[in-house]
Amino acid sequence: MARQADHEQRRRQFAAAALAVISRDGLEGLTMRNVAKEAGFTTGALTHYFQSKDEVLIAVSEHGAEIVRPMMDEAATGVSAREALRDLLHTILPASAAMKAQWRFWVAFWERGAHSPQVQRVMRERYFEYMNRVASVIRRAQEQGEAPRDLDVDQVAREIVATIDGLAVQVLLGAAKFTGAAQRQFVDTMLDARLGAVAASPPKASRAAG
Amino acid sequence: MARQADHEQRRRQFAAAALAVISRDGLEGLTMRNVAKEAGFTTGALTHYFQSKDEVLIAVSEHGAEIVRPMMDEAATGVSAREALRDLLHTILPASAAMKAQWRFWVAFWERGAHSPQVQRVMRERYFEYMNRVASVIRRAQEQGEAPRDLDVDQVAREIVATIDGLAVQVLLGAAKFTGAAQRQFVDTMLDARLGAVAASPPKASRAAG
Repeated sequence: MARQADHEQRRRQFAAAALAVISRDGLEGLTMRNVAKEAGFTTGALTHYFQSKDEVLIAVSEHGAEIVRPMMDEAATGVSAREALRDLLHTILPASAAMKAQWRFWVAFWERGAHSPQVQRVMRERYFEYMNRVASVIRRAQEQGEAPRDLDVDQVAREIVATIDGLAVQVLLGAAKFTGAAQRQFVDTMLDARLGAVAASPPKASRAAG
Repeated sequence: MARQADHEQRRRQFAAAALAVISRDGLEGLTMRNVAKEAGFTTGALTHYFQSKDEVLIAVSEHGAEIVRPMMDEAATGVSAREALRDLLHTILPASAAMKAQWRFWVAFWERGAHSPQVQRVMRERYFEYMNRVASVIRRAQEQGEAPRDLDVDQVAREIVATIDGLAVQVLLGAAKFTGAAQRQFVDTMLDARLGAVAASPPKASRAAG
């Protein structure tokens, strides 16, 4: 039992070190040697846990999911589903240094996913989970009268996920001036345009404005 | 003159070789040695033209822009601005092997752009050009009564660009089953939702349905 816990602990340590390397230097800097060095271990110690760079990337994605998932869960619990959706999307925006690091990693993960079947398989699972999460909040919004009943929920969920991914690209590249507040405003405008303004059909008197 | 033409010719040859390497192996395979080999030259010959991998990437992006720009120009000339916008977006979708190769490169370019100021600068110019192109077609649609007058055109152009980028990610990763027809349908639905269905307020009798 203790040994298993140590094993997990060490894996997390390496994943955190790999995230730091990717965030700083990108895929270019991601070598087994650099990751081991960043974590303060020998390359041999690292290869005991991970056979390849792709395995390291997958561990980083698990590490990232463990951080982001509870944040998304927490955000998605709002009483108003529309507010929950907005909060969920605000939570994952590249508006903080930590989330920017996650997104830099995510872009690297896309790049490898376009070439490595192993990485692609993991990424599909992540997207499946993420899109389902968004879709289920939209369905809750429909039930609450905060989104049109005739919406194609899967299409809208895919659109929203695509728009957030593309927004993150624009933020990381500085393709537009996007402060955290501007990103959140961008998301709010997009949601109102796509799901209709919430005030237009208030389902409950208890739903306070703003 | 002849020498200058040869120089340009050789640069294009290397850019095409680099695109082939990236499309096949991703950034992982992008070494000066691999690109030179793919083009049938020595590494020394390549370094005579490009000092670094980032310079090779920038040349590939220029090469890609030269291919895609005339396609976008052609698509954007439609009489109906809404149809022109749709055609422009359809043109750049990763629906063909050639465009998928361009998008695989584009994702690699994002990854490097998040870390290399030199790549990021070029990428900002590309996005600026692309967003302006989309925004100007939307403005034309407004003038033609094919898009709401009160639209925040810059926001919508950024949203559309973001959504197409994110859609390409989903296609490359197989995160959703996206045939070419499904991609075009996705774009059409997104445009109708964001700009209003064209049939809802026909500006001219000459605008045939479908």
